[in-house]
This record gives sequence, structure tokens and C-alpha cells, in this order.
Amino acid sequence: MHAYRTHKCAELRASHVGETVRLSGWVHRKRDHGGVLFVDLRDHYGMTQIVADSDSPALPVLESLRLESVVTIDGEVKARSEATVNANLPTGTIEVFARSATVLSRADELPLPVAGEQEYPEEIRLKYRFLDLRRETLHANIVKRTQIIRETRRRMEDIGFTEYSTPILTASSPEGARDFLVPSRIHAGKFFALPQAPQQYKQLLMVAGFDRYFQIAPCFRDEDPRADRLPGEFYQLDLEMSFVTQEEVWETMEPVMAGIFETFAEGRKVTPAGEFPRIPYAKAMLDYGTDKPDLRNPLIIRDVTAEFQQSGFGLFEKIVGTGGVVRLIPAPETAGLSRKFFDDMNEWARSEGHAGLGYATRKDGVFGGPIAKNHGEDKMAALWDSLGLGPNDGAFFAAGKEEQAAKLAGAARTRIGEQLDVVEKDAFRFCWIIDFPFYEWSEEEKKVDFAHNPFSMPQGGLEALETQDPLTIKAYQYDMVCNGYELASGSIRNQHPDLMVKAFELTGLTQADVEERFGGMYRAFQFGAPPHGGMAAGVDRMVMLLCGVQNLREITLFPMNQRAEDLLMGAPSPAMVKQLRELHIRVVEPPKV
Amino acid sequence: MHAYRTHKCAELRASHVGETVRLSGWVHRKRDHGGVLFVDLRDHYGMTQIVADSDSPALPVLESLRLESVVTIDGEVKARSEATVNANLPTGTIEVFARSATVLSRADELPLPVAGEQEYPEEIRLKYRFLDLRRETLHANIVKRTQIIRETRRRMEDIGFTEYSTPILTASSPEGARDFLVPSRIHAGKFFALPQAPQQYKQLLMVAGFDRYFQIAPCFRDEDPRADRLPGEFYQLDLEMSFVTQEEVWETMEPVMAGIFETFAEGRKVTPAGEFPRIPYAKAMLDYGTDKPDLRNPLIIRDVTAEFQQSGFGLFEKIVGTGGVVRLIPAPETAGLSRKFFDDMNEWARSEGHAGLGYATRKDGVFGGPIAKNHGEDKMAALWDSLGLGPNDGAFFAAGKEEQAAKLAGAARTRIGEQLDVVEKDAFRFCWIIDFPFYEWSEEEKKVDFAHNPFSMPQGGLEALETQDPLTIKAYQYDMVCNGYELASGSIRNQHPDLMVKAFELTGLTQADVEERFGGMYRAFQFGAPPHGGMAAGVDRMVMLLCGVQNLREITLFPMNQRAEDLLMGAPSPAMVKQLRELHIRVVEPPKV
Repeated sequence: MHAYRTHKCAELRASHVGETVRLSGWVHRKRDHGGVLFVDLRDHYGMTQIVADSDSPALPVLESLRLESVVTIDGEVKARSEATVNANLPTGTIEVFARSATVLSRADELPLPVAGEQEYPEEIRLKYRFLDLRRETLHANIVKRTQIIRETRRRMEDIGFTEYSTPILTASSPEGARDFLVPSRIHAGKFFALPQAPQQYKQLLMVAGFDRYFQIAPCFRDEDPRADRLPGEFYQLDLEMSFVTQEEVWETMEPVMAGIFETFAEGRKVTPAGEFPRIPYAKAMLDYGTDKPDLRNPLIIRDVTAEFQQSGFGLFEKIVGTGGVVRLIPAPETAGLSRKFFDDMNEWARSEGHAGLGYATRKDGVFGGPIAKNHGEDKMAALWDSLGLGPNDGAFFAAGKEEQAAKLAGAARTRIGEQLDVVEKDAFRFCWIIDFPFYEWSEEEKKVDFAHNPFSMPQGGLEALETQDPLTIKAYQYDMVCNGYELASGSIRNQHPDLMVKAFELTGLTQADVEERFGGMYRAFQFGAPPHGGMAAGVDRMVMLLCGVQNLREITLFPMNQRAEDLLMGAPSPAMVKQLRELHIRVVEPPKV
Repeated sequence: MHAYRTHKCAELRASHVGETVRLSGWVHRKRDHGGVLFVDLRDHYGMTQIVADSDSPALPVLESLRLESVVTIDGEVKARSEATVNANLPTGTIEVFARSATVLSRADELPLPVAGEQEYPEEIRLKYRFLDLRRETLHANIVKRTQIIRETRRRMEDIGFTEYSTPILTASSPEGARDFLVPSRIHAGKFFALPQAPQQYKQLLMVAGFDRYFQIAPCFRDEDPRADRLPGEFYQLDLEMSFVTQEEVWETMEPVMAGIFETFAEGRKVTPAGEFPRIPYAKAMLDYGTDKPDLRNPLIIRDVTAEFQQSGFGLFEKIVGTGGVVRLIPAPETAGLSRKFFDDMNEWARSEGHAGLGYATRKDGVFGGPIAKNHGEDKMAALWDSLGLGPNDGAFFAAGKEEQAAKLAGAARTRIGEQLDVVEKDAFRFCWIIDFPFYEWSEEEKKVDFAHNPFSMPQGGLEALETQDPLTIKAYQYDMVCNGYELASGSIRNQHPDLMVKAFELTGLTQADVEERFGGMYRAFQFGAPPHGGMAAGVDRMVMLLCGVQNLREITLFPMNQRAEDLLMGAPSPAMVKQLRELHIRVVEPPKV
């Protein structure tokens, strides 16, 4: 007989009744029924009810144990009486009558309960993560995470992608975030960097003649922690293809992503592969006020700038007259709502730093609200009719400089959708945002800068770079968005050395700068580089969506806390003087305050 | 039609004849046959012969291109004449008559040829790794590496293991090698370490109630480069199981490893799963003079210490009299070899720092060699017969202190096996080395230290630690060895906090030390820890064996050079002052020499 178990704790069924078995696991719960002890014995796979009655030698052993102790039970499988069958448990038709109990590990008093799901302070949970991870929901989330990643690998491999691991000790990357540095022992004063993404390596792989690369890639950015960003590392489904157009990347990845989501959707709807809307960036900013639209929200923002060029509403007329825009966010069937609803929206807009959010309503053919009053009944009716708004609809108005108005309209759209409860439930709605601008204006540096990935291919190629206003150039750059989250980002890459230099020149870098910063890739492009492109999807975000959680710690095995500390392992920690000496560095004491 | 290709370069067959196709790839070779140009067009998948005849517009385009330029060819598939069919090429029955050629990327003069496999200086190969990786053998090795890893994952998952990723930014680990450190920006003067192995995390996973963990895990040790160790990172197949004995680990992993090797053996023999010999450490040191025996070598070392307790050969008698040992290494059918063979062996032993390697032969019943002369004919005959040596066998003798004699005998066994050409060819011979000593004597520190993994379970438990001479205690610790290489190492872990403290105390550490250094794990063991164990196998070593290469750079995508530099990406490199300031460190200039 196996030293520890003949069966797992999720395995026994009615068909095992009468068998002598051995189980090992954690004492999850104990219930004393007057001389008879019931123990829920738990392992990774499930739970089995153990019964120790008054004449069993196991009784005193089990009685003496604290919850979460680890024991081996020898006993006999018996059928439960009909009244005590537990239909919620796969093993619920049987119980094991313990003949003996052997203690494998005695638990001290617990700092954190395992059974039940009560809230507990995060610091305790992280310090005793090994207990926290035994709790049902977190345990299940972590298992689901591994299943999602496994499914991702399987789907990528099934369509001809190969997983290549790229170096983790590498050079600084140009993604723009802060690098984690690793001092070199052998080269005094020099440093490796942990990769922010395998961007350059995957492109080099394509130039090296491989094709259809992917990687579940650890990425590292030394940024300040946020709710949706853990300190330290995160994982991307990184991929790249040779001899592709952006359409082929989309067509390739829609079945993968829709397929993964469908597999774990548990009844939730998923946009079918082949039906992901492709929304140009400019249109997304107009229709949704964001480049991460949540398509579960049916509301569409409308541009009504032209309608306010001449208006009795002086504020909007002035805004439009000075180059601003007016955007209308429909609020269907709200004309009957109390004024408080509209005022609260205005208050909210102000609290977010905007000047305000005007509104209008039409009830029984009569317009209400301050804007309607000033703009005029006829014009309002024309507006309402041209937009196809309904007889009892309301609408909000965001006016101002285009960027600000779009942002306010987008946020208002989200809020209105939630408040009116018109957002589709239990659904994952995907789309592509495409045709991103290649450059943007950096207010900070007062210069043109890359809007996204500097290695993307500008639409129009060299001619566009040489003749167009840089801020009007689009890139073959795209995002995959789901339910308002950017799930993935990618592009067709610029594989022409001349075009690469020219693209950087427009941001103020010289050819020498390019050669110095991206020497490997620049050199590679001289010796036969195929057209290539790809994308990277956030694995953690995918898992969060599929697990339905808001906090990355609920889907991460051993996360750091918000102060970038690993409370379980005690990292970071001081280094020994000898170590620092070997690394040719010295700690600089922070100034005393 | 697809912008770049209707088919891959390995795809066209006789059945495609007559079709209009589009191919894209690299110009691998060009052959000018007087007005007709033949081009081997290559992509990741294979090669297709392109023909551009004198009236094709593709001709001048292709003529103008250097090798390794990237082109798109439009053309028609034609059958090759019988005389020109290339049976070595999957596409060898057809060729594509080019109607047009579009240049996608023009190659400069190459610093390194791609076609052909000539040797090239390593620095050039690494600097232009994207060209080097296009070469046939290296490209195939890298692909095979990915296949081996994929197969490994598949086999582990098929038997119920789940892959969990453990943190890469973590605390210093106790494996004993040098850590790579990562300065913390948020915590001045503190450092993360990159994991030397996920040892503690995988044990914590078991304590957290997961089971059957594995990971293709990146590991990091800042050690000086060696031929069989690249600077920086390497990969392990890391695994751990709960509620297991060491026998179950062996039984679980033999099918995985044998299966992987069989899959990629290409006709080479593999020790079948279930038949890996289990050799106690002490026996391995005796029989093979090493704990990494190459079982393809049939020679078995014999201990003949007792036979030389009383001997006319004073040197051996003296060695034995002072506690030393004599080991005999058989050299079958060597009695007829010239004296030079034996003398050369002796010379070799001396050049390796040993006192020498005696020998004896028996030819036609007559003993020869210096040892036989002194030891005496009768005793030699008795020795020969008791060991079952043959009538024309020779033997070498390694004498001295046990450890030294074993080492010399082991090295001699290897050398004799090679010289006599008795080592089995085209085979992977596996075994387990088991029952490793738990402790060893550290000459350097003049104290007892852990021989291997400090987290292993000592055989005999607390009683052994309290009563036995520490140096006689064995551990539930094992290696998997293949062809003389340690492929994997593992153990059953010590999951009892008291036992853990006691084990460390014998090496001079206090309970406080244990709590400080391994606080997470020590804490975890207080709250219900299951018996658990596992192992870690060197992925790089497995790939090297299966690819039949000696140098890790031949199976690694973007390796560093021997000076721990990434010549392609230019790492390590100086950091900006701003970066160092944020990290609270300063570079200490090395002393000027």
C-alpha cells in the first residue's frame, strides 16, 4: 500500500463502498457530534468526509489536532444514509470510517482561517500566503490561471506557432518605462536590464528566419504599483509573424482569443472569431470617447459641433467658434427621471475636473434642460430627429477642446450606461482599435514623439514621413480591446533601416542615436529582414477578466504588496558588503529628512 | 492573393505543377547557368528552387541581389526533368518559374555566410546572431530545443502535473551559488535576487496545498562561465509532488525522461522506463569512481584493498596499512597490447596530479607488469580468478586515500573505456544515484556542512541527527544520471520545523539563523506541511545530449559570450546617473592597476 494514499480526496464514489482506503490531507473542518467526530479532509483535488466514532483509535488523534494539520487516514468507505448525502460534493455519497489516523504535520494556531472565505487584511494574507492559497476561491483562481495559460499555449501551437524563450538578462529596452537593472560582476560599472518586453528579440527572431514565434513571456517594469499593476513582473502572450499584413495578424489571433475566452466563459457570451469590429482610432475617440471602448455599453457618442455653430446657447457657440467641439451622449428613456439624475451627473463631471455636463430632455414633445432652453425648440427638434433620438430620451453634452470633450463624453458614456443599467451582462465584447497615430505631440518636451511603439511601420512609408505633417501619419498599429480593457497591443514593424532612421529623426534622434540605442536591430535590418508584425496580450488581464476579479493579487501566486515587498520571502533585503563589493557598487544613503 | 505568399518554401509538390504561386523568403544560393538564374529561396520551413530565365523580368532583379536579401516571387510551378530532380529536398521534384521578383529587403555584404556550415569566429557569430541563426544546423538545433521543451510540457501535463510560474524578482536563495542582485528603487539599500532555482517557492506551493507542480523554470547564477555553463540564465524542468516517497518520484519521472529521449533519439537506444538502475552513492563511488557514472562504459572498478593488506608490493601494503584503498580497473583483452599503452596511462595519471597508475597483465597464464612482479604470481592468480578476469586481460590499479583512489579509478575507467573502444555507441544510459550523504566535511571551514540540498530529509529523521555521526547520515537525495552527466537532482524534503532546525544546527546555524534566512519556509512548516519531494532536471543539458553538441551556444538562441556579454544587444552597458540615483546606488570605480 502507498505510504500516504490510495486515493485522492476527490476520488471516492459509491462504487468504492466497502473498500479499505488510505487518504492524506489537511484537516479542513471538524464537527463533534457527541462522541463521533466528523472531519472534512482536504487535498488539492477535493474533500472527503472522515468519520471517527467513539471506538476508533483515530478519534483521540483527530480530536487533538488543530485545523490545517496534515494526517493520513486508514479506513473503510461506507455509503452515507440518504439523509446525509451531500449533493454539492463529488464525494458526497460516501464517507470514510477511520480505523487509524497518523499525524504527518501538526498545525499551530492559525493566523488566518482557511475554511470559509472571510475577508482578511492583505498584509496577513501575503505574509502567510501558503495559508491564503489553501482557501477555496484563491486556490481555484490560481488553478484556472494555469489552465488559461495551458489553453493559450495549446491554441498557439495548434496553429503553427512555436514558443521560444528570449533572454531575461539583457539590455535596456526602449519601451519607455523604467528598467530593473542588474549590476554586472564581471564588467565593473555596467548593468544588465530585465526585459520590459521581448520586443527586440522577437523581431530579431523574425530576421533570423524563424516564423510564428510566441512566448508566455515574463516582463519587468519598475513602475509604481497600481491596482491593475503589480510591482515587478507580469506575463504577456507575446507573438510575432513573418510575411504578414495586419489583417492576417487579426485573422490569426481572433480565433485564439475568442477560443480561450469561450473555453473559460462558463456561459458568458463572447464575440465570435471573425466578428471583432475593427474601429479606427479616430472613430473610437469620437463614438466612445476612448481607445478602449466597452462595447457592452450600447450608447454611442455623437458629434454635434456643427449644430452649435450658431446657437442661442452662447457658451457652446463660443466653444465651437474657437475650434472646440460638442459631443452628445444619449441617455435613452431618461426624460421621466428626476432632475437629480441630471444634476448628479453634472456634479460628477465637475468632481472629475471638467467644467460641467449639460443636458437636455424631450418629454411628450417638450424639451427641457438648460441647453434646450437657450439653443431653441426648433433646433433641438431638428437635432433630436437627425440623430434618431426617441420621444422620451435625454442627452448629455460634453463641450470643449476635442481631446477633453472626447474624454468627458467617454467617461459620461460609461457612467450613464451603468446608471441606466443598459450595459450588457455576462459578455466579453471584443474589438480591434486600428490606425493609431504614429506620432503625438509631447507637451512636456515640446516635440514630436512616438505615440506608441517606435518600431511600428508608418502608413504611407518613407513618403509619408517626408511629406506629411507627422501628427497626421497613422501607423500599422492596433490594440485588441475587451470590455473596456486593452487586452493586447501590436503592430506591423518597420523593417527598413532607412525608414527606421527617418522615423526616429522626426523625434529628434540621429542615425548615430539609433545605432547606439538599437544597434542590434538596426544592424539586423541591413542583412535581409522580412516584413513582420505581431502583438502582445496581457495574460494577467485575461485571467482577471475570466476569473471575474478586480485585483491582480487574486490571480497571482506570490504577489508583492503595494510597497513592492515580498512579505513571505522577505524581499527586498539588505545585501552583504561582500556582494556589493563584487558588484562594484555602493549603497547611497538617502538624505535624512 | 496574399501580399507575401500563397505557400511556404517547403510546401510545393508535384501535385502543384501548373499552379500560379507566390513565395517569399531569403535568397539562399544563386547559380547562373548562362542566362538562366537558379535561386534557392529559403524560409523557416524549407527551400524551393526558383528559375528566372532570360526573358523573365525577375532575372535582373534577382541578379542584382546579394545573398540573404528577402524577395517575393510570383511564378508558375513546373515539374523538374528527371535528371534534375533533387531527392534530398521535399520540394525537389518541382521548381518555380519566376514571372516577377519584388525586393522586400536588400542585404548588405554579409559578415558571415549563411549557406554552408563553415566554422566562424564566435564573436562574429554572436554579434551577428540573426545571421548565424539562419544557418541550417543551428536553426535546426533551436527548433529541436523548442520541440523538446514542448514534449516535456506535454508529458508532464499528461500525468497530472500543472505548470505554475514562480516569481523572478525574489529573495536570496540558499543554493550556495552567487546571486544576481536587483536594487530596489522603493526601498533604498535593499535588493531583490533572481532565483537560483524555485526551490523554496515550489516547497511553499506544496505547503499551500497544490500538488504535482512543474515549471520550465528560468534560473540564474552569477558564476564564472564554463564550457558547460553559460553566463546568466539557464532552464530547469523543476517539479515537486506532495505525499510522495522517493520511489514514487523515480517511478513518475522515468517514463517522462525516457519518453522524451525516445522521442528525439533518432535511432539511439534509451534505457527503458522502469529499468533505470538505482545505485547507492557509496556503490557508485566504488564501482565507477564517480557519482555521475557513464553506464555505456561496461568496465566496473573493483575494490582489492583486502588483497593488498599483505603484499610483496610494499607501496600498496603501506597505503592499505595507513587506511588507504586499492582499486582495480579491468582492461579486458589488453595483455597483448604494447607496453606503451600502459605507460601512457601512467603518464596521463601523473599529468592529472596523481602519483601514478600501476598495472598488471596476464598473457598465456603469465603475469606481467610491475605490480604482479612484487605482489607475487600466486596472489595475482588468486586475485584474477576471484574477480573473474579473463586469460588475456590487463588491469590498472589506483591506490591511495579512498576519495583520491576512487577519483583516479573513475577517470581511468573512462579513459580505458574510450581507448579500448568498449563504450556503447548511440545510446542514452540512465541511472539513479541514491542515498547521498546528508553532510560532508568542509575542509575550508573546518566544519560539517550540507553535502547537497539543505532542505532534504535525512534518513533516520531526528533520531539519526541526534545520535549518528553526522558524516554517516544519508539523505533521501538522488540524482538522475545519463551518459556520465548529472541530468537531474532531487530529494524528499524535510518538512518538520524541529528537524529543520536540528539539521541546520549541526552545520553551526542557530534557530534564529534559520528563521532569518528561510523565514517563509520555516513559518510555513508550522501550519500543516505535507510530506513532499521532487527534482529539477537541466533542460539545456537534455537538449545538448539530444542534439549531440558539446557547446551550450549551439542550442541557445541569444547566448552571452564567455565574458558574460551580449554582443548583439550590447549588454551589460553603463547606466544613466539618473537611473543609479533612483536606485540609491553608486558605481565604485575598480582600483587602477
